[in-house]
Amino acid sequence: MSDRVYLDWNATTPLRDEARRATAAALDLPGNASSVHAEGREARKWIEGARSAVATAVGAQPRSVVFTSGGTEANALALAPGLRRDGGSAVERLIVSAVEHVSVLFGGRFSQTSIASIGVTRAGVVDLDHLRDLLRGGPPALVSIMLANNETGAIQPVEEAAAIVHEAGGVLHIDAVQALGKISFDMRGLGVDLLTVSAHKVGGPKGVGALVLSEGLSGPEPLLRGGGQELSRRAGTENVAGIAGFGAAAAAAMDCLPASTARIQTLRKQLENGLRQTRGTLIFSDSVQRLPNTTLFTVPGLRAETAVIGFDLAGIAVSSGSACSSGKVQPSHVLQAMGFDAEIAQGAVRLSMGWSTQDADIDSCLEAWRSLSGRLLKSQRRNTA
Amino acid sequence: MSDRVYLDWNATTPLRDEARRATAAALDLPGNASSVHAEGREARKWIEGARSAVATAVGAQPRSVVFTSGGTEANALALAPGLRRDGGSAVERLIVSAVEHVSVLFGGRFSQTSIASIGVTRAGVVDLDHLRDLLRGGPPALVSIMLANNETGAIQPVEEAAAIVHEAGGVLHIDAVQALGKISFDMRGLGVDLLTVSAHKVGGPKGVGALVLSEGLSGPEPLLRGGGQELSRRAGTENVAGIAGFGAAAAAAMDCLPASTARIQTLRKQLENGLRQTRGTLIFSDSVQRLPNTTLFTVPGLRAETAVIGFDLAGIAVSSGSACSSGKVQPSHVLQAMGFDAEIAQGAVRLSMGWSTQDADIDSCLEAWRSLSGRLLKSQRRNTA
Repeated sequence: MSDRVYLDWNATTPLRDEARRATAAALDLPGNASSVHAEGREARKWIEGARSAVATAVGAQPRSVVFTSGGTEANALALAPGLRRDGGSAVERLIVSAVEHVSVLFGGRFSQTSIASIGVTRAGVVDLDHLRDLLRGGPPALVSIMLANNETGAIQPVEEAAAIVHEAGGVLHIDAVQALGKISFDMRGLGVDLLTVSAHKVGGPKGVGALVLSEGLSGPEPLLRGGGQELSRRAGTENVAGIAGFGAAAAAAMDCLPASTARIQTLRKQLENGLRQTRGTLIFSDSVQRLPNTTLFTVPGLRAETAVIGFDLAGIAVSSGSACSSGKVQPSHVLQAMGFDAEIAQGAVRLSMGWSTQDADIDSCLEAWRSLSGRLLKSQRRNTA
Repeated sequence: MSDRVYLDWNATTPLRDEARRATAAALDLPGNASSVHAEGREARKWIEGARSAVATAVGAQPRSVVFTSGGTEANALALAPGLRRDGGSAVERLIVSAVEHVSVLFGGRFSQTSIASIGVTRAGVVDLDHLRDLLRGGPPALVSIMLANNETGAIQPVEEAAAIVHEAGGVLHIDAVQALGKISFDMRGLGVDLLTVSAHKVGGPKGVGALVLSEGLSGPEPLLRGGGQELSRRAGTENVAGIAGFGAAAAAAMDCLPASTARIQTLRKQLENGLRQTRGTLIFSDSVQRLPNTTLFTVPGLRAETAVIGFDLAGIAVSSGSACSSGKVQPSHVLQAMGFDAEIAQGAVRLSMGWSTQDADIDSCLEAWRSLSGRLLKSQRRNTA
């Protein structure tokens, strides 16, 4: 598939060379990281190296990093009643933004009746006044807001949210899965209490992630209990190879971050200028700060499922939104929360780029789109005539 | 560490060549297995291939296999109130054997007050009369018994247990993590309802496992919710590389199983004959059927922690029992359940072998042990004089 153009980086980032090397090296360690012999200590060394790299990438202490099997598990671990900041009260309810990843919307270990939803603007940004209203009066809440949305790329006002949540005696979790490696941020600077990241969004292997905890936070209760791994916060023999790859990918992503951002932003401008040549093109969240690499767009009458298949046949991998719901053809809950009707929401196509994306990829994509949109939109018009 | 002798296969089996190749190949797939484009379909293909291989290895249908991040997660997923066999009642309590892995002893999603423990004989075999007593009278129970013990290697009467449990309207989970690849078994033949396996015990990567469900079983409720992966039984982007490695390792382990078993049994005989040269040597569970590769032994006055370090310095990786409790120096709960006092339990050293173990490794181990036991037991005697 070497001639293919890959524009689905928000689903999975291609493996970085650094991650491939680290994963392969760690894969061959026979030791269990909990064993005391030399083989065990060697496995432990790789894990602790990766822990430092991930901690540095998000601006935290290594001991704050709990490795998990991915973002979904980290979110499930984070969303737990009983969480408490230093000197604060235990949270009893959950407030999530309406545009969260589905693994957050499920609410972890909170009962469905104790979960409230924060609305977003038409540009996909969390409504902080609504958050204030929801916090007022009730018992202490855990609030979960993503740092950047996986579908639109919209960056959320997390720092302001942290101040509001803490003022109300609450705890703030952010899902930074889509933001890591695409924009600079610092957990302490943002003032958040828990933060989720995932390896395969920064060029590491799939099936590894981490929950990072702020200093002084009590909880969450472990989701997996048994052995004493991860300071008894997450039991189970560690995915040594995956964790090593995560560490290497996170370090590499941080190294190339500012230069990569500027270059990709230029490519996106070129891409979006091209897309706008089609009459009626709508680029979601383009009036607010977005991740530099993400374009979610539609044209009246477009069906995303058909467009994704058309792009695929033209040799270009794109997405119709979140890739996490295998086989489901449902309108995006993100666009519905932004106030778009189901018909528009079902027409949204996501193009997302990364470090190896080149001018030529954008050209190929636009060329394919010109041909595809001509055919698809014509056939759409016929079908609805 | 190429001159080292690795006799800690029950902690982690060295990576099989087949698993290394499959993991490396799958690691480079950029696609997310939930994406519909060619890259996504390719990732999906690797996962489904591995699912078939794991299903074949345990005697189940591919659709019965739920991939997890390891044995601990599979056990946590399995131990859920509400499980029900076709036409049966939902289980309300949990009965576990006293020699289970610690991830089972924690009881998953059962409250601590609804968990009972089945005693074992001095040879480490589950007492089926005690199981019958525990089942009698109470509400329907989930019973969890391991197929083979990770410390002693003792094989449990799982088939008989299944008949007893089903007669009482219960559900049987078996933890087959330590048995897979070491002895032949068939899930349907054993008649069990849920079965846990792990990749790194059969030469696959660490951090991958599976829960296998029998046909007609209802539940368990997912532990990780979000995307629709694994037929909505376990959300989260799949560890494609790890799963591919698991599939390849499981297939390779099955291919060489009977030949490997016979060869290793001969090596163990040689090993145990050598160990018994030391006066007072006790080999645990040697009066019952054991895994062919496992020897747990002690000598009066031995301290396992010191022995493990001594072996390590002599270039030999061995274990003092379960490696899953990082940093914990506690007497084995398995040996305590078998009726041995804490002093004996703290002296137990586990030697476990695998397909690449050679005559020379056994010779090196016995040579190291002769020198080590002379020094250690002398110093023990001095210390306690």
